[in-house]
Amino acid sequence: MEDLYKRLDKDNVAVLLVDHQAGLIAGLVRDYGVDEFKNNVLALAHTANFFDLPVILTTSFENGPNGPLMKELIELFPHAPKISRPGEINAWDNEDFVEDVKATGKKQLIIAGVVTDVCVAFPTLSAISEGYDVFVASDASGTVSKELANVALTRMAHEGAQLMNWFSIASELQRDWRNNAEGFGALIGEHLPAYQNVIGIYGAAQKEGIK
Amino acid sequence: MEDLYKRLDKDNVAVLLVDHQAGLIAGLVRDYGVDEFKNNVLALAHTANFFDLPVILTTSFENGPNGPLMKELIELFPHAPKISRPGEINAWDNEDFVEDVKATGKKQLIIAGVVTDVCVAFPTLSAISEGYDVFVASDASGTVSKELANVALTRMAHEGAQLMNWFSIASELQRDWRNNAEGFGALIGEHLPAYQNVIGIYGAAQKEGIK
Amino acid sequence: MEDLYKRLDKDNVAVLLVDHQAGLIAGLVRDYGVDEFKNNVLALAHTANFFDLPVILTTSFENGPNGPLMKELIELFPHAPKISRPGEINAWDNEDFVEDVKATGKKQLIIAGVVTDVCVAFPTLSAISEGYDVFVASDASGTVSKELANVALTRMAHEGAQLMNWFSIASELQRDWRNNAEGFGALIGEHLPAYQNVIGIYGAAQKEGIK
Amino acid sequence: MEDLYKRLDKDNVAVLLVDHQAGLIAGLVRDYGVDEFKNNVLALAHTANFFDLPVILTTSFENGPNGPLMKELIELFPHAPKISRPGEINAWDNEDFVEDVKATGKKQLIIAGVVTDVCVAFPTLSAISEGYDVFVASDASGTVSKELANVALTRMAHEGAQLMNWFSIASELQRDWRNNAEGFGALIGEHLPAYQNVIGIYGAAQKEGIK
Amino acid sequence: MEDLYKRLDKDNVAVLLVDHQAGLIAGLVRDYGVDEFKNNVLALAHTANFFDLPVILTTSFENGPNGPLMKELIELFPHAPKISRPGEINAWDNEDFVEDVKATGKKQLIIAGVVTDVCVAFPTLSAISEGYDVFVASDASGTVSKELANVALTRMAHEGAQLMNWFSIASELQRDWRNNAEGFGALIGEHLPAYQNVIGIYGAAQKEGIK
Amino acid sequence: MEDLYKRLDKDNVAVLLVDHQAGLIAGLVRDYGVDEFKNNVLALAHTANFFDLPVILTTSFENGPNGPLMKELIELFPHAPKISRPGEINAWDNEDFVEDVKATGKKQLIIAGVVTDVCVAFPTLSAISEGYDVFVASDASGTVSKELANVALTRMAHEGAQLMNWFSIASELQRDWRNNAEGFGALIGEHLPAYQNVIGIYGAAQKEGIK
Amino acid sequence: MEDLYKRLDKDNVAVLLVDHQAGLIAGLVRDYGVDEFKNNVLALAHTANFFDLPVILTTSFENGPNGPLMKELIELFPHAPKISRPGEINAWDNEDFVEDVKATGKKQLIIAGVVTDVCVAFPTLSAISEGYDVFVASDASGTVSKELANVALTRMAHEGAQLMNWFSIASELQRDWRNNAEGFGALIGEHLPAYQNVIGIYGAAQKEGIK
Amino acid sequence: MEDLYKRLDKDNVAVLLVDHQAGLIAGLVRDYGVDEFKNNVLALAHTANFFDLPVILTTSFENGPNGPLMKELIELFPHAPKISRPGEINAWDNEDFVEDVKATGKKQLIIAGVVTDVCVAFPTLSAISEGYDVFVASDASGTVSKELANVALTRMAHEGAQLMNWFSIASELQRDWRNNAEGFGALIGEHLPAYQNVIGIYGAAQKEGIK
Repeated sequence: MEDLYKRLDKDNVAVLLVDHQAGLIAGLVRDYGVDEFKNNVLALAHTANFFDLPVILTTSFENGPNGPLMKELIELFPHAPKISRPGEINAWDNEDFVEDVKATGKKQLIIAGVVTDVCVAFPTLSAISEGYDVFVASDASGTVSKELANVALTRMAHEGAQLMNWFSIASELQRDWRNNAEGFGALIGEHLPAYQNVIGIYGAAQKEGIK
Repeated sequence: MEDLYKRLDKDNVAVLLVDHQAGLIAGLVRDYGVDEFKNNVLALAHTANFFDLPVILTTSFENGPNGPLMKELIELFPHAPKISRPGEINAWDNEDFVEDVKATGKKQLIIAGVVTDVCVAFPTLSAISEGYDVFVASDASGTVSKELANVALTRMAHEGAQLMNWFSIASELQRDWRNNAEGFGALIGEHLPAYQNVIGIYGAAQKEGIK
Repeated sequence: MEDLYKRLDKDNVAVLLVDHQAGLIAGLVRDYGVDEFKNNVLALAHTANFFDLPVILTTSFENGPNGPLMKELIELFPHAPKISRPGEINAWDNEDFVEDVKATGKKQLIIAGVVTDVCVAFPTLSAISEGYDVFVASDASGTVSKELANVALTRMAHEGAQLMNWFSIASELQRDWRNNAEGFGALIGEHLPAYQNVIGIYGAAQKEGIK
Repeated sequence: MEDLYKRLDKDNVAVLLVDHQAGLIAGLVRDYGVDEFKNNVLALAHTANFFDLPVILTTSFENGPNGPLMKELIELFPHAPKISRPGEINAWDNEDFVEDVKATGKKQLIIAGVVTDVCVAFPTLSAISEGYDVFVASDASGTVSKELANVALTRMAHEGAQLMNWFSIASELQRDWRNNAEGFGALIGEHLPAYQNVIGIYGAAQKEGIK
Repeated sequence: MEDLYKRLDKDNVAVLLVDHQAGLIAGLVRDYGVDEFKNNVLALAHTANFFDLPVILTTSFENGPNGPLMKELIELFPHAPKISRPGEINAWDNEDFVEDVKATGKKQLIIAGVVTDVCVAFPTLSAISEGYDVFVASDASGTVSKELANVALTRMAHEGAQLMNWFSIASELQRDWRNNAEGFGALIGEHLPAYQNVIGIYGAAQKEGIK
Repeated sequence: MEDLYKRLDKDNVAVLLVDHQAGLIAGLVRDYGVDEFKNNVLALAHTANFFDLPVILTTSFENGPNGPLMKELIELFPHAPKISRPGEINAWDNEDFVEDVKATGKKQLIIAGVVTDVCVAFPTLSAISEGYDVFVASDASGTVSKELANVALTRMAHEGAQLMNWFSIASELQRDWRNNAEGFGALIGEHLPAYQNVIGIYGAAQKEGIK
Repeated sequence: MEDLYKRLDKDNVAVLLVDHQAGLIAGLVRDYGVDEFKNNVLALAHTANFFDLPVILTTSFENGPNGPLMKELIELFPHAPKISRPGEINAWDNEDFVEDVKATGKKQLIIAGVVTDVCVAFPTLSAISEGYDVFVASDASGTVSKELANVALTRMAHEGAQLMNWFSIASELQRDWRNNAEGFGALIGEHLPAYQNVIGIYGAAQKEGIK
Repeated sequence: MEDLYKRLDKDNVAVLLVDHQAGLIAGLVRDYGVDEFKNNVLALAHTANFFDLPVILTTSFENGPNGPLMKELIELFPHAPKISRPGEINAWDNEDFVEDVKATGKKQLIIAGVVTDVCVAFPTLSAISEGYDVFVASDASGTVSKELANVALTRMAHEGAQLMNWFSIASELQRDWRNNAEGFGALIGEHLPAYQNVIGIYGAAQKEGIK
């Protein structure tokens, strides 16, 4: 299928998860409900796994109050590179991290992290300046307030980042349900509880009809 | 421990879960986020299980568009009575339901359901009028808007219902962490992701200290 | 069926619709979206018709800027008494209106109107003081802001009014789906579009099952 | 009349309605009130009919939980092409759909759908990349939250889409009331209930004046 | 006209305006928009003047940062007693103030002020304890946040205060438009700009009709 | 003073007030509080008068339900051209209007109107396409919801309009308080009641200091 | 001064601060902004110190993830009893705590804590049932959402608690500025930054006047 | 370290604080909570001090109602140039101010002020037009409403300003924790109370681990 616009291509994309650490989330994420944010991050992580995308994890000061990475991320990506940055705030300032990104050979990057205005915005702007196409997973990224999220997303959009969210990312990667309808349905159903309810009604009604 | 006020007593309470059905939730619950509401209902259900409280399930027209009960509730309470009401809107108008309630021998009732203004409010007012102490689990009950939830909760409070939420219910039943600190901590941690983050930081820090 | 609490009884209730006039709605109702409010008022009106409840319409200064009654109400209740009050702000101060209420022989009153803090609150308090049971249809009543609606509803609740909404009113009157499941389903489906979507999925799924 | 800016021209525009299906709406649309969203979609549809614009309908998995197209759309456009996509998420990836678009011979496209960030954003970006002028009907498009809607609309605006809404679309197509004042007034009045109230007052006042 | 419930009677009511001072309003009122609050206070003041109600003004530390009384209030009530309290926070603790209240001979009191939780709540509770019927003008009273306003209004309602707002107060005092329709219409129109717009349309339409 | 950026220059600017009519405001403006919107429009109008800017008024169907222009605007601009458009929705499609604009000889235009997405957006885009610099007075323009306002403002910003508000417009025109400090202070004080309170405190404190 | 209603009396009141611990605040308080909540708690604490009120501190599991008490509270009350509850959730279930309360000899209790629905509500209801007058400091108490805070405050109000906030508490205790105007002004100014701004303007203006 | 994108460089940046005066803040800032705004401004100021950035203060009419500069700013920057503008609204129109900016020799400017749409937007646009890179500290800038803030930030972003906030500014300047981890941690901890709570838990847990 020829590409119609600069869109996500599952054969050419890597996922960078930046600083989804317990202390940062507890201390700084207030623009999403707690349940909602956890669900969004895990949805993006499951999406990465579903499409076998290379994932790079990184943390900042994880032995201090920023705390350990969300334990679900560690479990989901046991073989992913995990760069514990000794001090660099912008992950792109860490040479190991950039080398790991380059080693993937991908030219598209999905970036999410905590907090949006720092841990997402800085590597996003750096990667764009080096020629990457960056797709920001806005709802798997959190910060201190909705106002700050808006300001940071506006900054990135004006510099050329594509603003997306986990569900549009999953959909743009999948392109066609027939590539694996059952698997994709399960992925979506698990993280969209309202849609799961609709599936529940549908299944029940079908059985009624069959009777 | 002598009782200081009319409070929940785990030896004298039953839980009534009214019409948590897929179609009703998809079609009518808008006062809570979808993730948040699902989490609240399951938290209340796990609380009931943790304290071995008698639970009574009931549904309205489950073979029609109201849809099947949330499947997690069926799995959690395989032996609970489940009254499929043939038409009564107020569960208390169904004799089987009331008999099941009476059969528990309890005088305190925790009630949650969908929608708050109908499926919760009607049996709450009926039970109060028959002398029960009713504790409404407000956040495991949902309806069309925050305004309608407020109106329904106000109606119940003025008739004598105690307004609570799953976390205060769990805490009032537990009374003392020493009754089972590990189990109670796990119950709470699972349904309060922000608190889970705090636990994560704590555990990590402790390990650092030990080194 | 014996009555469990002071609840609506379709054989003992009248509906008072107070000042749902075009000018008042355009000029003063801001606590509900415009679409939403119109839907709520018509839902209550259709409920009254469905249960053949006596309805009394009244207007204030309808030949001035307050404007004519919503034309749908006139069409729905061609035979209802319609009291054009020459000046009384509290409908209960108008003798014709009170006589019409008394002529219904009912002891329960459902009241809705524009604006909540005046046209609903005043006759509600008057009717309570004369021994009626009053059920306020909060979402078919509108006013200048959510804050004012809350203040007025609190005032009425503390004086003994039961706060309800059109859907809980319809449900409390219906009591049992078997009294006319099809008709009641149609009534609800028409005014709860989200529920109508659920019905749509259900019907479609059933057909799929049958195939 | 010479064209002053890239604006909608009723002789050069087609309307694409993407996936307004009962299951998707029930399960995923939370950025608009349910009444409000239904009204907006129908308003856009009536607008298309009023101007005799070519309309193309498309659905995704309509025999599964996504459910059937809103029944009002089927009734309004009995002769419109309706592409049931077997799997493509981006409607523009479906050759039949693109052929139907091309067959209209129009260079301007109005696009609306569910959900905004997927079913609207993807074909919008595709169509722009193929040289079409795209006008997004933002309020006839819905998604999971206001935040996600903003993110998706920002992405489209930065790629060159014109953000509009049903009322501005209708007005830009109409250009001059004198082209059919009565018809246009009826179209608007039906979907702007607050404006309808104003019309009501006006009409009543006029009669008073005549007396 | 016999009184149906404890309602405002223009022959038996006094108005207490407590601490509507420039510094307190600038520094502490955040639960209403600035324009909105000023309009509400003046609307209540004009209502008092329209019905020739006795008004008592009081200030706290007006020569310090609390600042002078709103200058419009001074102009509107040139002959009203104005008690500059030397230190008492609860106006009812000031003997001169209470004497002035008693001198009016009225048993109903309308109270408004800044801030709601202090300058309104304290004299309201004092006056109730001395047997007065108190009607709180909630929207002519302001404080630091909506949450604090709710808390303070709840406290007062539970102690027996009637919660009202300037428009319901004006309407309850007026009782019948025929007592002075033109004057009352002007009073309302001036402070309800949306209603004024409706009046504008009406007047224009009437002229059209006459032509 | 040399000009640093494309900014408002009081010698080179005209003000276009489009369709601030009573019926449109009553029926359609919901993104601002009623008091707040009226204040904003009058503030912009007074600003135009203060700087002796040429003003062009225009209305759409003012003899129908759209209603007459706000009467304050008529009083403020007795000598301004007032184009009653016989049907054109985009004021720029009306030749008389464009001629009047051209007759001013100005190259900068401040535009405000009702509704933002139609009556403001259309002439804004037209004027930009003809080479004018357009400054949108966002808060003196209103529409059906905040969402629609955002969508329309985004459209205009992407086409090159400068988004402003009455206060920044007044300030950019004034440039230096010394050009008429007293007059400018009065203009601002009248329409920023919170600032007026601050002035009140200041004045009072000064007197205390003098004593 | 004779007491007019059940109001706070600085000679008869003790303050109970329940579980203001770092982990609970980080993990569970979402109904207030973080800055705002910290300010409110410290404001209440400073109020207690200013009036030399007996204060009782208590914590739950402070050596676990609930974390240590806010360090400012420890510094402010070095001599206050501090009960580290070994497990009791309701502080009133801890005998040492109740003894400490009784030892104060006071009959009025101000209670604040984290979270409102548990750590505040439970001891509040217990203390009321033992005959104390309880004044809840609502804004120095926090919980998971505004909805839960409302539900818990409603429960307490219906059981007889007086709902207040730190500023109304401070004001009711102070009663008269002359008891220590400077000290009270400093207390308020420190925790109401907006009021501090007003004081700043006042002071500056006074100096200008003196010149 | 080579620079990857146009980012803040602590050796090439100056900070302009425009009109953070008591009267302007009290009278005009409503888009942030009062506590929150004060914290944000001080956080930016401490950031400037921490990195030894040249700071330029300026005020407008500080001897009138606009009031004195926030006293904390005067204390923090005793040696900074402080330009009392005699009348220019746009600080960039004041020659002394521009000379002071030029004297710093920096090409990057961080700008914050009150109000966003005037005192921040005007010098931002002027500085951009003269070739400076401008970084707006959005959360240390305040205005009358969130809507106006959005409008002003959009205007600046479209003209090329980088939208940031105090925390992302501090982080971009710091680049690497190792440049002074303790100092930077203290800076952040002081102004992010939620993060401070996390630090508190961490420290306590560490001690527990050590035991």
